[in-house]
Amino acid sequence: MELLMPQLRYNIVTGDWVIIAPERSKRPIDFIKEESEGSENNTATYDPYCPFCKGNEGITEEETFRIDDGDAWHLRAVRNKYPALASSGAVARSGHLYHKTISGVGQHDVIIETPAHNLTMPEQSQLNLERILVAYRARMRHFYEDKRIEYVILFKNHGSGAGSSLAHPHSQIVGTPVMPGQVRMRIEEALRHYGDNGICIFCHCIDQEKEDGKRILHENDNFIAFIPYAALSPFHIWVFPKLHNGYFGDITDNEISDLAEILGVIFTMTTKGLKNPDFNLVIRSLSPPEGDVKFFHWYLSIVVRLSNTAGFELGTGMYINSSLPEESAAYLCSMKQ
Amino acid sequence: MELLMPQLRYNIVTGDWVIIAPERSKRPIDFIKEESEGSENNTATYDPYCPFCKGNEGITEEETFRIDDGDAWHLRAVRNKYPALASSGAVARSGHLYHKTISGVGQHDVIIETPAHNLTMPEQSQLNLERILVAYRARMRHFYEDKRIEYVILFKNHGSGAGSSLAHPHSQIVGTPVMPGQVRMRIEEALRHYGDNGICIFCHCIDQEKEDGKRILHENDNFIAFIPYAALSPFHIWVFPKLHNGYFGDITDNEISDLAEILGVIFTMTTKGLKNPDFNLVIRSLSPPEGDVKFFHWYLSIVVRLSNTAGFELGTGMYINSSLPEESAAYLCSMKQ
Repeated sequence: MELLMPQLRYNIVTGDWVIIAPERSKRPIDFIKEESEGSENNTATYDPYCPFCKGNEGITEEETFRIDDGDAWHLRAVRNKYPALASSGAVARSGHLYHKTISGVGQHDVIIETPAHNLTMPEQSQLNLERILVAYRARMRHFYEDKRIEYVILFKNHGSGAGSSLAHPHSQIVGTPVMPGQVRMRIEEALRHYGDNGICIFCHCIDQEKEDGKRILHENDNFIAFIPYAALSPFHIWVFPKLHNGYFGDITDNEISDLAEILGVIFTMTTKGLKNPDFNLVIRSLSPPEGDVKFFHWYLSIVVRLSNTAGFELGTGMYINSSLPEESAAYLCSMKQ
Repeated sequence: MELLMPQLRYNIVTGDWVIIAPERSKRPIDFIKEESEGSENNTATYDPYCPFCKGNEGITEEETFRIDDGDAWHLRAVRNKYPALASSGAVARSGHLYHKTISGVGQHDVIIETPAHNLTMPEQSQLNLERILVAYRARMRHFYEDKRIEYVILFKNHGSGAGSSLAHPHSQIVGTPVMPGQVRMRIEEALRHYGDNGICIFCHCIDQEKEDGKRILHENDNFIAFIPYAALSPFHIWVFPKLHNGYFGDITDNEISDLAEILGVIFTMTTKGLKNPDFNLVIRSLSPPEGDVKFFHWYLSIVVRLSNTAGFELGTGMYINSSLPEESAAYLCSMKQ
């Protein structure tokens, strides 16, 4: 064992210390749940009550995007029936200081990843993963054409432990009329790093991970996937584009193909090694006019949900990671074949 | 209905926008869970396998604090059997930039709130709540005497949905050798507010909440409890001391009595109105030398865990609150009698 004592590692991207306490847990295998939440209630191709199933298109909200093959669709985006933000109305600011308020307008789509009720993202083919990423790109670009929108977040909740309430595989995209405070703080950290060191903080992570070589899960021409040195939680995976760019919407077809490939490898590892765990997938990106800044870089994050946040995390913003990133990476890599 | 459209409210303390989307939910009553997690497996006064039960003192780690009545103890603090940080060893810093690391030393105690396995915090008498707060004060003061410790967090996880793994009522206190990044950012926000407005951000919240008068749950001589204007989640409760002070350890006996009283009222409301929900309780405080700063104020936060965080919250740091704080406060106040 390389390390038994707990240690704190500083995550330069989030600006937070992480407690790495591997002695609190046992072996990577101990993280596996008895039963996978991700696949619960998910045995048939078609569910007559599911609004996202093929054949039930009439009960979804307005369709906003589709990839089809003549009659048969492969993927659809629709407006969320219960949007977090209203799609109509102007951005109206009111109040000040303690009462600073903005009208809750924006966009909120659901991306139905497949017509089949039971084909989860980790089971998708390379071709279908590419289609999902093409939809992500198209919807993000479209959302940013709405001048009311300041920030767009793309995410997926897989399994009830990750906050998903509908079993049919889907992603979500939300456009908000504000820059989230956390995003502002991340940009501030990145800017400070650039000012201090003259290199993009994300490019710096890639360089360091490649030099260390102990936490890389997979790499191809355009992307690198790793469990970062200061991973916030067990099997917390970052996928960084190698080409420096702040805006996800600039991704090329060629890069989409490589990103789909790397996601496929990650899902093979997690499905086999962690028995299809619940997870959140998030794409963090700046907006189009910021795509060219030297100090920020879009990326994709996969947070495997093996434990829940509690009072310690709420009160400090710090995470306790009960696994050693180097060991977790070695374990997942052993699942590659 | 005063408001049906979603709106974004800016939380001046956290520096984050909150989406208030009351149309996504229904009535306050809809937040009630079918079955309370908080009281699961919690029917007998004594559990022979529970290390925290009266009679099983021999199987806990070293005792660090006790309130007793001759032979019978009312409350004990013990070292955590699975500490997040090691209690022995020096603070050693190593690495730099991407590899910045500190040895994982600190303190981690469990505060066993009662000898009885099934007497949860919301069911405690005023006297016992005071004892718990006395223990909090004593342990926080003691932790800060350890010169390796930079920050102390006090918290309680009630119910499995809030991250509790042991049913016997207990709180936790952790002393870390670093100031958490989130705490630093909160101090920065508070400092900016003080610089801009010449008033402590927390004193400002109290003034505004009193002026509005629509979200106050209870008030006594020394404390005020309210659901803030920009509450991060449904029934998110803040309890602020009226006396400006940055350090919880300075709390007087008289203030402890008032804090216990206000907690008792809050628990009556939540137990009755939300059927003993899972919750996290956190005390946010600076360290003793910072107790006198003009710009920061310790406080207690109760986060009722009715829903889980998912991709949106992870990716933006923003919360979607599906309840209107004014309505939630009115609902809880109706449970006072």
